[in-house]
Amino acid sequence: MKAWRRLSKSVSPNGRTVELHIDADVLAMNVNGRACRSIWRDDNGRVMIIDQTRLPHDFECLAIDTLEDAEIAIRDMQVRGAPLIGACAAYGLALALKKGDVDIDQACSRLLATRPTAVNLSWALNRLRHHLSEQPATANQVAAAFGEADRIANEDVAINSRIGDHGLELIRRRFETTDSTVNILTHCNAGWLATVDWGTALAPIYKAHDAKIPVHVWVDETRPRNQGAALTTWELMNHGVPCTLIADNAGGHLMQQGQVDLCIVGSDRTIANGDVCNKIGTYLKALAAYDNNVPFYVALPTSTIDRDLADSNGIPIEERNPREVLEITGANGELRSSICVAPTGTRAANPAFDITPARLVTGYITELGAGRLPDL
Amino acid sequence: MKAWRRLSKSVSPNGRTVELHIDADVLAMNVNGRACRSIWRDDNGRVMIIDQTRLPHDFECLAIDTLEDAEIAIRDMQVRGAPLIGACAAYGLALALKKGDVDIDQACSRLLATRPTAVNLSWALNRLRHHLSEQPATANQVAAAFGEADRIANEDVAINSRIGDHGLELIRRRFETTDSTVNILTHCNAGWLATVDWGTALAPIYKAHDAKIPVHVWVDETRPRNQGAALTTWELMNHGVPCTLIADNAGGHLMQQGQVDLCIVGSDRTIANGDVCNKIGTYLKALAAYDNNVPFYVALPTSTIDRDLADSNGIPIEERNPREVLEITGANGELRSSICVAPTGTRAANPAFDITPARLVTGYITELGAGRLPDL
Repeated sequence: MKAWRRLSKSVSPNGRTVELHIDADVLAMNVNGRACRSIWRDDNGRVMIIDQTRLPHDFECLAIDTLEDAEIAIRDMQVRGAPLIGACAAYGLALALKKGDVDIDQACSRLLATRPTAVNLSWALNRLRHHLSEQPATANQVAAAFGEADRIANEDVAINSRIGDHGLELIRRRFETTDSTVNILTHCNAGWLATVDWGTALAPIYKAHDAKIPVHVWVDETRPRNQGAALTTWELMNHGVPCTLIADNAGGHLMQQGQVDLCIVGSDRTIANGDVCNKIGTYLKALAAYDNNVPFYVALPTSTIDRDLADSNGIPIEERNPREVLEITGANGELRSSICVAPTGTRAANPAFDITPARLVTGYITELGAGRLPDL
Repeated sequence: MKAWRRLSKSVSPNGRTVELHIDADVLAMNVNGRACRSIWRDDNGRVMIIDQTRLPHDFECLAIDTLEDAEIAIRDMQVRGAPLIGACAAYGLALALKKGDVDIDQACSRLLATRPTAVNLSWALNRLRHHLSEQPATANQVAAAFGEADRIANEDVAINSRIGDHGLELIRRRFETTDSTVNILTHCNAGWLATVDWGTALAPIYKAHDAKIPVHVWVDETRPRNQGAALTTWELMNHGVPCTLIADNAGGHLMQQGQVDLCIVGSDRTIANGDVCNKIGTYLKALAAYDNNVPFYVALPTSTIDRDLADSNGIPIEERNPREVLEITGANGELRSSICVAPTGTRAANPAFDITPARLVTGYITELGAGRLPDL
């Protein structure tokens, strides 16, 4: 597979593209072997991200140098996925402190306003603020902030690895029962690109593949932003995991036909009663799984659990720009272009998340184990 | 709205595009007022269709002059929708007879092989063959065949108008209960473009709109071929019916939020026990409707009912080209282009239909009435 292009010129609105002088083709084949993360600090301590709006056709890395850079990256979905936007927000707050003369409340408000649904954003910012509040007055607040942001990022990797271990056992049990390829359906992208590394829903799949358990993944394309088509396929193919892209409409039929052994999805916010907020369309797949006795698992770090909300109706559902429904961006050979399928003047609605009631969820896979949602 | 372009040059593979010298903008505003049909015979008796693969951005009409033309039109979905492909197949058989020296069995086999799922294809061909078999030996078989094909087409219009009348009463009752806009979700295109005129699922909506009942339609984009985004929005907007395009993923959430009053879809084949085969993804919407107590109606002519099958597992589900999932065609201004969202080399699956079990269907709207599936 040769899905990468050599990195070249600046493309971001604020001109903060940074060239990575690497052999693109080598990277494409070894992206996991090189332990490429979705957010990292380079040798000079600079915060770096992969611009996910350019994948899978272009691999471009951006520097996050200011609070505003972090805001843009989260809002415009250069980074996305609940755990990753938490880590990115923590770095954004650290960068605000570094600039000096900062109103921390205001900086947090700006970061929180970028995306309303995922709880990890406020979780990470609260953790960072709490950490700073415990520093002695003489401490270097900037260094403390970057240190804690680094810990949030590094812990995310460890947490997701544990999620992978626990989920691996579910897949292994299925394989030991049937002795045939385990077919797993996933929605959106809850892979390493949605976290700092490993992923949530995909971590068990990577671990199973690495453990030589035959797995095959049905990848929902995940309209309107196509995270499944653009990111999940790219991740899985780079790692060598067999996968097949399907329209979001197809999953129910595949379950009726016995072609799905289990579903694993991620979450942007899960409340104490077990109701799961995740990418729009997750609820439809959970209904189909329930109707066909297909186990439906939600993989999430405990930082995604919102203990404060008693009712999932209280979760703010982000309504994104209708243009995401009306315009589709992709590659035509070397060209990148956006096309419109609907007639000029069509009105569109674009809710980004939905709620899957706990009654449809077979189990939750967290860093603490697989089964019921842990009491924290 | 100005979604039409003046008709111009030949684009079909066999060069059978015919120019219609009409003012495109006037047509766009009056397409229903002019009683434009999806298939018709021109002043010279030539069979004409709208090339639906070019909508909504280009309006091009094609002549169907041979059996092969009809095969291509159905297989490549220049015409689609169960009732329309039935009518087109009937004309295809008449054209084969006109050419002379034809093996009727073979001609029917060729037409039946174009699309396996919709039962209207075989229904129309059987009806035409039966009609021919009843002709006296001295009769002009070609004239008889065209006469019967014309009757099939004209009856379809009358049947769909009756479906519209019966469905209108359901919408009217809802409106009289709530005294507010009736929000209707539909999947794929079961409008006049899917039939000869009026449509099945959309006929009640057109009739309600014409009766001044306030209606608003949630249009599923209907991946992978985007019939909702490209055709249903176009039909509704031309007729002045308020509508909003949504990703296929969004309908469940809208139902949870109380934003859908009822669902109406079409069908490609419905069996005697009430199981409904329709465009892939219909089943997911039926599950969501059931889960949220939203009435779910299937609108179909009785010619779509297959009385021979006892089990919906016997319905052949067409698996279409994976390229339909991987490549999306649309407009970028005046340009028409195809783009790819997934990485190069991605594998895709493309089942075109699914089965909605009868237990999820609130009622059936046929030309005979609304309620239970009629015993024929």
